[in-house]
Amino acid sequence: MIKRIEHVGIMVSNMDESITFYETLLGFQLRVRVKNEEKEIAFLSHNGLPDFEIELLHDLQPTTSYSAYGLVNHVAFIVHDIEEIISYYKQKGIVFETEKPKYGINGRKTIRFRGLDGEILQLVEEKKEEFIQNK
Amino acid sequence: MIKRIEHVGIMVSNMDESITFYETLLGFQLRVRVKNEEKEIAFLSHNGLPDFEIELLHDLQPTTSYSAYGLVNHVAFIVHDIEEIISYYKQKGIVFETEKPKYGINGRKTIRFRGLDGEILQLVEEKKEEFIQNK
Repeated sequence: MIKRIEHVGIMVSNMDESITFYETLLGFQLRVRVKNEEKEIAFLSHNGLPDFEIELLHDLQPTTSYSAYGLVNHVAFIVHDIEEIISYYKQKGIVFETEKPKYGINGRKTIRFRGLDGEILQLVEEKKEEFIQNK
Repeated sequence: MIKRIEHVGIMVSNMDESITFYETLLGFQLRVRVKNEEKEIAFLSHNGLPDFEIELLHDLQPTTSYSAYGLVNHVAFIVHDIEEIISYYKQKGIVFETEKPKYGINGRKTIRFRGLDGEILQLVEEKKEEFIQNK
């Protein structure tokens, strides 16, 4: 049901400087950068591991900060059908952060839950065209 | 110089239970599990992303705990020549956690440093046979 690991999220205080850091020192390429009222997000890809990305997160509203849970903040997983897996996980006792999935950038459905020690894990439903391409 | 992203490290308080959690709910397979006086470590692989793993870390000695830096604790990168990249990064102002690389499991050289916000990043020198296989 979990198709693959997709990204790890890292909290940063200065998006420009951190993008430059990951690009110049660690060989990443900025793929997309978006901002809403709460936060700014950038996804960086790496040629050495094409199916995995680093997400840099900068909280514009300190009250919404994830960083209390660590600077390397969460790991995200791609799933085919998020509603199906939420239903299955609920049967297993998993409590999700929100009642329903939210829409992330690119309109993908996403929801968070916790591992046994509180580590943040995220499910992301792949887009239909990704599913078709990868079938 | 950075070949690829290799793993993300997650702190856990009960290794048995967390391995079961990642295996049964998230589709991981335990690849290796080792213990020394300070900590127990398990690497879990996932069929969906063969070149990336999750490392579960359980501190046996609370004084050596990494968990103060977050439950999702660090991201690791594979490099060809760790001494060469340490030298290059030092010129760029990076301060490493230790003066010299340590030897991780499987005898691979490894060293840690921090991103701009203190996020923990780790370099791991690939073994010679890995380099030959992947050339």
